[in-house]
Amino acid sequence: MNSNIFKIDNLQYCKWSKEIFKINKEAKLDAIHVTIAYHEDFDEVKKNIDEWENYFKEFKDLIFQGKTFKDIEKAHKEKKTAVFFGFQNCSPIEDDIGLVEEVYKMGIRFMQLTYNNQSLLATGCYEKNDSGVTRMGKEVIKEMNNLGIVVDMSHSAEKSTLDAIKISRKPIAITHANPSFWFDAKRNKSNDVLKALAESGGVIGLSLYPHHLKDKTNCTLESFCEMAAKTAELIGVKHIGIGSDLCIGHSNNVVDWMRNGTWTKTKDYGEGSANNANFPKQPEWFRDARGFKNLEMGLQKTGFNNAEVNDILGNNWYNFYRGINS
Amino acid sequence: MNSNIFKIDNLQYCKWSKEIFKINKEAKLDAIHVTIAYHEDFDEVKKNIDEWENYFKEFKDLIFQGKTFKDIEKAHKEKKTAVFFGFQNCSPIEDDIGLVEEVYKMGIRFMQLTYNNQSLLATGCYEKNDSGVTRMGKEVIKEMNNLGIVVDMSHSAEKSTLDAIKISRKPIAITHANPSFWFDAKRNKSNDVLKALAESGGVIGLSLYPHHLKDKTNCTLESFCEMAAKTAELIGVKHIGIGSDLCIGHSNNVVDWMRNGTWTKTKDYGEGSANNANFPKQPEWFRDARGFKNLEMGLQKTGFNNAEVNDILGNNWYNFYRGINS
Repeated sequence: MNSNIFKIDNLQYCKWSKEIFKINKEAKLDAIHVTIAYHEDFDEVKKNIDEWENYFKEFKDLIFQGKTFKDIEKAHKEKKTAVFFGFQNCSPIEDDIGLVEEVYKMGIRFMQLTYNNQSLLATGCYEKNDSGVTRMGKEVIKEMNNLGIVVDMSHSAEKSTLDAIKISRKPIAITHANPSFWFDAKRNKSNDVLKALAESGGVIGLSLYPHHLKDKTNCTLESFCEMAAKTAELIGVKHIGIGSDLCIGHSNNVVDWMRNGTWTKTKDYGEGSANNANFPKQPEWFRDARGFKNLEMGLQKTGFNNAEVNDILGNNWYNFYRGINS
Repeated sequence: MNSNIFKIDNLQYCKWSKEIFKINKEAKLDAIHVTIAYHEDFDEVKKNIDEWENYFKEFKDLIFQGKTFKDIEKAHKEKKTAVFFGFQNCSPIEDDIGLVEEVYKMGIRFMQLTYNNQSLLATGCYEKNDSGVTRMGKEVIKEMNNLGIVVDMSHSAEKSTLDAIKISRKPIAITHANPSFWFDAKRNKSNDVLKALAESGGVIGLSLYPHHLKDKTNCTLESFCEMAAKTAELIGVKHIGIGSDLCIGHSNNVVDWMRNGTWTKTKDYGEGSANNANFPKQPEWFRDARGFKNLEMGLQKTGFNNAEVNDILGNNWYNFYRGINS
């Protein structure tokens, strides 16, 4: 085992810039998992990857593309941040199981089976009924397992998530969500899901997105860290990481697009509402990745020892990444 | 009302040729609804339409594209067959509600919300669980209603079908299936579905595809016509038509593609099996559309009067088409 202390934010979707990458490095992040698709199809994703290739060239002193856990070690050594690609939706594979291998070759390492709505693979958490993982879903999970793409069920519904945990022969991830025992939002997860996730070796990335937080923007650091402690009691500290869901720097038409994509002509407000349609404001103790420092202090104060704090802030995700291609 | 006697086969997917179009005309078919997509996406469908445009040019003495009920009258007068386009799947609209209008402009008049599997809109009859019409499904049905594309639930699961009947503000169709009281195949429909369909003004096209028939290829004309009589007792003769599901002339890799598309790497045999994977053989009294003559005699023999026989063999579908754009 590696004795380093790694810091990993396992979900960010910021308006990428030199400034953001510098902030991430200031926060000592060795790796981030970034979203490169919400509703994009295969060709559209290729364009997003082209953009990332430009970032990797332009900001090569700050970031490079991560493909295996060894890139996390490399980033740590070189004081850079390894950037791992993921999809929040299965839209890029369209209806073609053959595209799973294509996106793997492009470096995709995480894929959500659903983004809020029903997909061809499973049911999203905003649907009224949840029929679980579909016929195609079973086939695609097998393919993802074979290749080394992590099944991510952050935006999925309950039965679909339990199905995915059972069907996947590798641990799955919930890269960004919180327990519903703390705040009962549609996107947060039941104790049943959290327990099944942990029993199968999976990890949940606790989210700092205000719509997933008790008291939203006004959530306190203490409340968040107490939630982490209760979650650790419930499922064990080894199954907890951070997936901040930071969406900073974007204009509000981005959150509108995330919610509506091209699936509806009636405006959908997702976790917001007509009167509260915009990106929510981050709590002041986690405005950007430098908030990891506050999390560190807060978690210590709540009673976690140093090793446990390190586990939560990155080492658990590092170990999870080690398992992806095993 | 038009006092003509129309003959309509509301589902065919043959290997199109002059011979087939001549047979359809020999059978006096004034209209056929043809499948132009099983798994195709938007661009692939455009290619299929290009092929059809060639057929319309090459065989202009036999066929032309139908867009409204008036084209059925025109075809009857000119002794041709009007060809109406439909999709057996929603794959051509991909995940984009904006494409519904595009496919309407291309002449699409029927679209199944699902083809056996879960789609973005609803659940197919081969899935284990049926969550009904999805969030996107509701939006797309509204759009189809507004434009004049018929919701077709032939390959859909029970709850999804009942949902679609409820949600659609226009009558829906089951273009090709049989009642499960007669033969309990996955593709056939329950009494609940048949009753709800009829109550909402919809029509079912009775299927001549052997996997939907009692005793399959050995099904007798008598048995088929008795089934039609019982269905008429259950839901009223006005809600029954023919959707033969004729797939003649194709090589067996076509049925393999229909079943497997690009959704699985594990071979799926659909209604067949590993030992019985090919297109089934048609019963001898319905080898092609000329079997309409046998149906006419069979239905009369079962006790339907002439007006009722005419209703079943085309007039009910003609009236249904009249309502599409109302």
